[in-house]
Amino acid sequence: MAQEHVRALAAALSDSFADRLLTSPAALAQYAGSESHHGERAPDLVVRPQSVEQVQQIVRAAADHGVPVVPWGAGTSLEGNAAAVAGGLCLDLSAMDRVLEVSADDLLCVVEPGVTREQLNAELRATGLFFPVDPGADATLGGMIATRASGTNAVRYGTMRENVLALKVVLADGTLIRTGSRARKSSAGYDLTHLFAGSEGTLGIIVEATLRLHGLPEAVLAGTWPFETLDGAIQTVIATIQSGIPVARMELLDPAAIRACNRYAQLDLPERPTLFIELHGSPAGVQEQLAMIQAIGAELGGGELARAAETEARARLWKARHQALPAARAMVPGAVTWVTDVCVPISRLAEAIAQAQSAIAEKGLLAPILGHVGDGNFHVFFVLHPDDERAWAAAHEVNDAMIEHALSVGGTCTGEHGIGIGKREALVREHGSEAVLLMRRIKDELDPNGLLNPMKLFGDSLPRAR
Amino acid sequence: MAQEHVRALAAALSDSFADRLLTSPAALAQYAGSESHHGERAPDLVVRPQSVEQVQQIVRAAADHGVPVVPWGAGTSLEGNAAAVAGGLCLDLSAMDRVLEVSADDLLCVVEPGVTREQLNAELRATGLFFPVDPGADATLGGMIATRASGTNAVRYGTMRENVLALKVVLADGTLIRTGSRARKSSAGYDLTHLFAGSEGTLGIIVEATLRLHGLPEAVLAGTWPFETLDGAIQTVIATIQSGIPVARMELLDPAAIRACNRYAQLDLPERPTLFIELHGSPAGVQEQLAMIQAIGAELGGGELARAAETEARARLWKARHQALPAARAMVPGAVTWVTDVCVPISRLAEAIAQAQSAIAEKGLLAPILGHVGDGNFHVFFVLHPDDERAWAAAHEVNDAMIEHALSVGGTCTGEHGIGIGKREALVREHGSEAVLLMRRIKDELDPNGLLNPMKLFGDSLPRAR
Repeated sequence: MAQEHVRALAAALSDSFADRLLTSPAALAQYAGSESHHGERAPDLVVRPQSVEQVQQIVRAAADHGVPVVPWGAGTSLEGNAAAVAGGLCLDLSAMDRVLEVSADDLLCVVEPGVTREQLNAELRATGLFFPVDPGADATLGGMIATRASGTNAVRYGTMRENVLALKVVLADGTLIRTGSRARKSSAGYDLTHLFAGSEGTLGIIVEATLRLHGLPEAVLAGTWPFETLDGAIQTVIATIQSGIPVARMELLDPAAIRACNRYAQLDLPERPTLFIELHGSPAGVQEQLAMIQAIGAELGGGELARAAETEARARLWKARHQALPAARAMVPGAVTWVTDVCVPISRLAEAIAQAQSAIAEKGLLAPILGHVGDGNFHVFFVLHPDDERAWAAAHEVNDAMIEHALSVGGTCTGEHGIGIGKREALVREHGSEAVLLMRRIKDELDPNGLLNPMKLFGDSLPRAR
Repeated sequence: MAQEHVRALAAALSDSFADRLLTSPAALAQYAGSESHHGERAPDLVVRPQSVEQVQQIVRAAADHGVPVVPWGAGTSLEGNAAAVAGGLCLDLSAMDRVLEVSADDLLCVVEPGVTREQLNAELRATGLFFPVDPGADATLGGMIATRASGTNAVRYGTMRENVLALKVVLADGTLIRTGSRARKSSAGYDLTHLFAGSEGTLGIIVEATLRLHGLPEAVLAGTWPFETLDGAIQTVIATIQSGIPVARMELLDPAAIRACNRYAQLDLPERPTLFIELHGSPAGVQEQLAMIQAIGAELGGGELARAAETEARARLWKARHQALPAARAMVPGAVTWVTDVCVPISRLAEAIAQAQSAIAEKGLLAPILGHVGDGNFHVFFVLHPDDERAWAAAHEVNDAMIEHALSVGGTCTGEHGIGIGKREALVREHGSEAVLLMRRIKDELDPNGLLNPMKLFGDSLPRAR
């Protein structure tokens, strides 16, 4: 990134943005990293808009000066999705954090992109509604849309894909467009909403979103359920999903993950393969679901399901689950984590996890396995010393083998973390070069100068349309 | 369409396709119409491929000769979506009608595009699974994907959007791409699956689809439920949806629609505003749902819910509902129907239907109202004499007013029929010219010569990118 272009852009924006334009090395360093293993690179400047019009102004100015624009929410993405790898301007949307509307009648809300999922649910508290998508971190909703995020509730309530109704997006030339509508369904034209959802800021900047909300269930039943074997736990999940039992959450933690959570969140769970479950419905309905899954698990080595009956106990349980990443990191002083995720068809989940587990063991790595197994999605948290090159190389091999296996059974290289810079090669392996070339042609048409989050999704060595 | 180009294309294809290449006027006339009010125009030739490779060959040959390609499934679309309005080649995919795979373990199937929804469900009969999306006609699954179709089950099981996992698509230059995967969720790259779903054959030809299946419910409870007033029926729907009761089907028929169905399907229902409902779940669960909706309806003028307990009685009920279109047409000898649909946020459903109803009455039109009200989606079936110009003009006015109202409350100009040629202007009104221009840029990038289903979605008078 030529520094004179950056300086010219900073000068062009300084009047309008004053102290919302950050240029000091200390300030820029705050935007250098993210929850990823891809190294750090500070942007050349940061600007914090407060309105759609300001985003348009910034995007236009950056286009005029040929400076890359990298959107930023909470900085919690896991594949370097928001890293300024080509330098340029970091567009920090976290100050656009207003919930603009909540419609209980239409079970939807309208938010600015910097609203976080926890903030939204806090604002919904009095309404009897909630927003279900919950990645581990308290991510921003704009970032969650951009990476097509997911979480523990997806098995029942869907991912961001199913929960975004409409968007406002600023295109590469500063034009503002609307996509979708407030209707639950539509067949009016190309589905631009779902083209932008998951595009990781490479096609436009999401500046407003209309999201589906869900009624809080009348009854909730949650608990932890230890199993004799990992395979028994997974077979229980598979049979539950295949039976169509509408579980709300069904999470797996292997013994290493339980150990990490026990320590970090002061829990006292048996260090065995464990399902964290949650059932939603009427009081009778959740009892019925419970009986059905217990009947399945009893045949497969399921132990006693420890119920977290009180709201507070449930909150503690899920907080512990959501803190699994820092919990894993805290297992070894000075360690960092590298989190990877794949997603496979449910019938292949057991073999996928077994394959990952044996690869981890073979390499002698510390890497808890856990995940949203009801969706066929699981994570491996590699716990690594930053300078242990041999371990990093081994983790790369395990990650590659996991992806290879997932693709060989019709799965995907990432269920919910996105491609970023970490899985660009896997994107081609998954979809084939023809489909990735088509994605690239759409990218080049919408962002002909390549200024929107450059280097993401497509590597320079990958097919270029033009 | 210059006839020498068509003749040259026919010559190029004749060796490979022999009697699967149709050129006689009588044969072509079979592909002239569809269930639409947009007049007839026969294609210049028809070809009936039996494999993906043959589709590639045809698309390449058509590109070489500059001849438009219009994909065709069952010819049941309602907005002229499959009409050869610019002439050219009709690509009849109905001979690609094999169910390639059913995976009960992964709750999915893989189908060729010409499989119809009834055919698929017949083939699934022994598996305990079903495919829920059910537009009125026995449409092909390829056509249903292309128009993002929906039906009576969408309120619980989603539309085609939620039930398509992966596609194979032949692009304008004959390239074959794969989109999506067999995993339930993925954040790997742009969501090409949902770009093609709803693109009405304008971006590529869908030649294979991986679809989600659902377990047949343990218990089913269906019935008809007459109300004193249309508003009472609609308020019951709104309250049911807002309460989060997971009804499987919730259809509204106004008295005119009931009258039509009574006559056509030899039913004997009271000619009052009526909800057709269906509940899925465990035996106890459906009783619980029934009690909840009856409690809601009792306050709103709901009469006695007549249950169709037997499988056969249920089948008769839904068959009658699905035949509402021919039933409406049969009300007046020599009449034709023009079906329109809009979809609004659920809280605005009552006013939207009241607005349509009073516009119909004011114009003195015969036009039953019915629809998938649990989604906020409803249809008006205009019953018209082909040559009654005043009535057609009046129907246009009612249709325009319905769209205008739907858009004014944040709804969409079509919930499930698509844009075709009938709603091109409404597409711009709904999304704005900037968003439609973006759609057009994607179209022009993927189909630079404009040969894939030309004139659809975008009128010539609408913004062109290049």
